[in-house]
Amino acid sequence: MVETTIAAIGPPDRAAMTAARDLQARLTKPAGSLGALEELSVRLAGLAGTCPPPLPEPAAVAIFAGDHGVHAQRVTPWPQEVTAQMIGNFLAGGAVVNAFARQAGASVTVVDVGVATPLPFPTVGPADLAGEPTDVAATVAGVSGDPAHRSGPDRTASRLVDANVRRGTRDMTVTAALTRDEARAAVEVGIRVAGALIDAGAGVLLTGDMGIANTTPSAALVAVFTGVDPAGTTGRGTGVDDETYRRKVAVVRTALDRHRPDPADPLGVLAAVGGLEHAALAGLILGAAARRVPVLLDGVIAASAALAATAFAPDAVGAMVAGHRSAEPGATVALRHLGLDPLVDLGLRLGEGTGALLALPVVTGAVRVLHEVATFDAAGVSEK
Amino acid sequence: MVETTIAAIGPPDRAAMTAARDLQARLTKPAGSLGALEELSVRLAGLAGTCPPPLPEPAAVAIFAGDHGVHAQRVTPWPQEVTAQMIGNFLAGGAVVNAFARQAGASVTVVDVGVATPLPFPTVGPADLAGEPTDVAATVAGVSGDPAHRSGPDRTASRLVDANVRRGTRDMTVTAALTRDEARAAVEVGIRVAGALIDAGAGVLLTGDMGIANTTPSAALVAVFTGVDPAGTTGRGTGVDDETYRRKVAVVRTALDRHRPDPADPLGVLAAVGGLEHAALAGLILGAAARRVPVLLDGVIAASAALAATAFAPDAVGAMVAGHRSAEPGATVALRHLGLDPLVDLGLRLGEGTGALLALPVVTGAVRVLHEVATFDAAGVSEK
Repeated sequence: MVETTIAAIGPPDRAAMTAARDLQARLTKPAGSLGALEELSVRLAGLAGTCPPPLPEPAAVAIFAGDHGVHAQRVTPWPQEVTAQMIGNFLAGGAVVNAFARQAGASVTVVDVGVATPLPFPTVGPADLAGEPTDVAATVAGVSGDPAHRSGPDRTASRLVDANVRRGTRDMTVTAALTRDEARAAVEVGIRVAGALIDAGAGVLLTGDMGIANTTPSAALVAVFTGVDPAGTTGRGTGVDDETYRRKVAVVRTALDRHRPDPADPLGVLAAVGGLEHAALAGLILGAAARRVPVLLDGVIAASAALAATAFAPDAVGAMVAGHRSAEPGATVALRHLGLDPLVDLGLRLGEGTGALLALPVVTGAVRVLHEVATFDAAGVSEK
Repeated sequence: MVETTIAAIGPPDRAAMTAARDLQARLTKPAGSLGALEELSVRLAGLAGTCPPPLPEPAAVAIFAGDHGVHAQRVTPWPQEVTAQMIGNFLAGGAVVNAFARQAGASVTVVDVGVATPLPFPTVGPADLAGEPTDVAATVAGVSGDPAHRSGPDRTASRLVDANVRRGTRDMTVTAALTRDEARAAVEVGIRVAGALIDAGAGVLLTGDMGIANTTPSAALVAVFTGVDPAGTTGRGTGVDDETYRRKVAVVRTALDRHRPDPADPLGVLAAVGGLEHAALAGLILGAAARRVPVLLDGVIAASAALAATAFAPDAVGAMVAGHRSAEPGATVALRHLGLDPLVDLGLRLGEGTGALLALPVVTGAVRVLHEVATFDAAGVSEK
């Protein structure tokens, strides 16, 4: 499944991009006056292969949740049980991602791809994600695509998909975090979720994540794929103190020294120093790119997964939109490597998909201009 | 009216701000992880005098339109007639501000406060704005506050208010742009529009503007109120060439040398080198601040008007939220002087209210967090 998905990912459509640039020049506004929104609209036309590209709606947030063996190295003051507790919060609608999703009219799908403990919540079982994406749509429709959900407030209720590949990774300072087969299975979970959400009608996917300690494997992934030293890719996550921060950098360095992962082998990198949610997010991005649907990246977990996705398929970057500039330095390193400029820069470092949701109206607005704004000719407005 | 409005503007409510800070610390997210949104929510609590403050909805964009005698100095390649033509575009729903307003569910009210030529469009007459704001509500309700408009797509249809004070300003390089009485009348238009929109239900006002050549008086206003040299406050507006840019800086310098306005006399400054839309925007901001309703600033025209508003009433800054960082350098100079950080920074330089509309979901999201997110206690989530 990974190989067929990669094979389906192609370059942007140059003719659609040219058409979008030409249209932007004829709209009733000074040339270039919409700044970054103009080039964004051109990129999305290239992805869709048509101008104007479809409005990116409805929006679907996919929160991949996993735990991390490296938590044992005390890289965070938060207990591991918070991963599962926050999933309960997502399902009850009480987290920030829920508030932002309600505002944006986005659905929220929580996917347990690697939580350490069984979750005491009703789920859609893993078997429901085993088929081809088209077979999965009917099941996952209950999660996010049901038309009844789309029109009313219930559309934004979150549901849990049980696709647990392994109950947390192994400690990457001791051994590989995952086997290659586990990493591949997690990537496939992401691909299947992307396909199911798109089949259910989503016009844009937003990355979300939950996993106590997951900025540590993110820092390792960014270091491997960009060649930047761990001191430049490791941040303070939820806000660790100086001593914990130094330990965190050392932990990343130890893991890289132990495994020496090859950046040309993304599955090997994800297995050595990744997380299950990172692998699944890479799959989500690949799945969206294969369907030519945009995927809005949240913070450093998504950005590190995006590096893995481009290592699998360089053209996948054409489907990516950087939602915001996370306070985590690794996010900035990763986005620079991907050549992406974030849309929102407000010092967020929460994760969950919150930064992507804040950026969603900008993306929609950029596309809406191509649909709705009058040309100089049509409006009878003089040009300079 | 200006004096009673100024007298009604007070400082932020410290107790409400403390309550908002305390609530942010108890919500299920790492402390500080929402970055700039946290302090924004605290400021809005202080403005409202309660925690949580009301959600800033519905939103009302007020576009003040005016022409400028200084256009004769060839500070822009666009013909003056474009001001009136773009008003037609706003009323037809074809401009970028309309597309963004539809997306945000915001109403659009266009106010002719100083267009050079009579407009061939149906209007609400100036007499309807002559009374006290409470008397005006019924009339202006047809513009933006009618409940039927609020619930459906018609809510975002734009209407034109005729409040023309003068058919364009005089050329400020030759004489004062306005008399003090004209400047005062334009400020009062803004105060009345603010009151009418708030009476009609608006929970947040967004500044908009239309006026060919209006970045030139903006640069002059910013220079006067901040003391920064015109070379640092003048930009390329819609994108002028080098020769026009040099002329534009010289024009601003000539006007300042001729009038030597006193920054402690905001009415005198607006009369000497301002525009009718700048004066009206200053009034809109004062009117919003007096009612303790937030006002979301668009670009350099709004930022220069905001400087005038704080010269009238320093506490007015408590009602201001900087929407975006315009590409115009004067906007950055003005926002720094006001102590405001913009929410969106995407290189926009369009005006109309477009930058404020892009920032609106961030403002709403910041407040929504205080309303909807669960506390650690309530959600049963462990703390670090």
